[in-house]
Amino acid sequence: MKNPAEKTNIDEKFALFFDYWRPKVIAELNGQEVKLVKFKGEFVWHCHAIEDELFLVWRGSFRVEFRDHIVELNQGELLVVPRGIEHRTVADEEVEVLIFEPQATRNTGDITDEQFTAPIRTKI
Amino acid sequence: MKNPAEKTNIDEKFALFFDYWRPKVIAELNGQEVKLVKFKGEFVWHCHAIEDELFLVWRGSFRVEFRDHIVELNQGELLVVPRGIEHRTVADEEVEVLIFEPQATRNTGDITDEQFTAPIRTKI
Repeated sequence: MKNPAEKTNIDEKFALFFDYWRPKVIAELNGQEVKLVKFKGEFVWHCHAIEDELFLVWRGSFRVEFRDHIVELNQGELLVVPRGIEHRTVADEEVEVLIFEPQATRNTGDITDEQFTAPIRTKI
Repeated sequence: MKNPAEKTNIDEKFALFFDYWRPKVIAELNGQEVKLVKFKGEFVWHCHAIEDELFLVWRGSFRVEFRDHIVELNQGELLVVPRGIEHRTVADEEVEVLIFEPQATRNTGDITDEQFTAPIRTKI
């Protein structure tokens, strides 16, 4: 991650990693983080007790599944998942996603999953 | 602005307005706002006492001028302007920018400018 007064090129950052479901912090501000993540496949059901989570599709498409409905997200679209709402992300093909959420939010929220729970505050 | 669980298409939102320097809120989360704004020309020098400000270029390019250096930002690049740092935005051509900052941040920060100070919390 660069110093605050240096710019960040989002495509260049996405080109630096290849793993899925492991968010990388590219900016921090006001107690929040901007993260990049690549998804492919089905994530686990979870919710975040006190954090709202914003997904913005940078490249590709995926869906956010809730228990009672599904939201399909395409490139250039964003969705806020309110705190406390159970959800999972599913991508048929690889997708590049930008996330805004509070610092140190755990990707699997209220659960711990051997496969999916990622280290927090990983910078790139 | 849509309900939290409805998605937002960023290009469609940019197509809804034509004024410069007047940020429109498209999402709220964790006490923060995601705003869209169009710039053209030179803004006024200002700083934000307690808010860090993130600019992400959606279309076009512009520059953020600081008193001692300039950062050129192109499409797909972002910059965090830390709180307390005087700056102004300058765009030679129209640019579409996404802003992420605390709720109710005033666009001109510590100053009031007849031409540039915009209403806060305007949603679209």
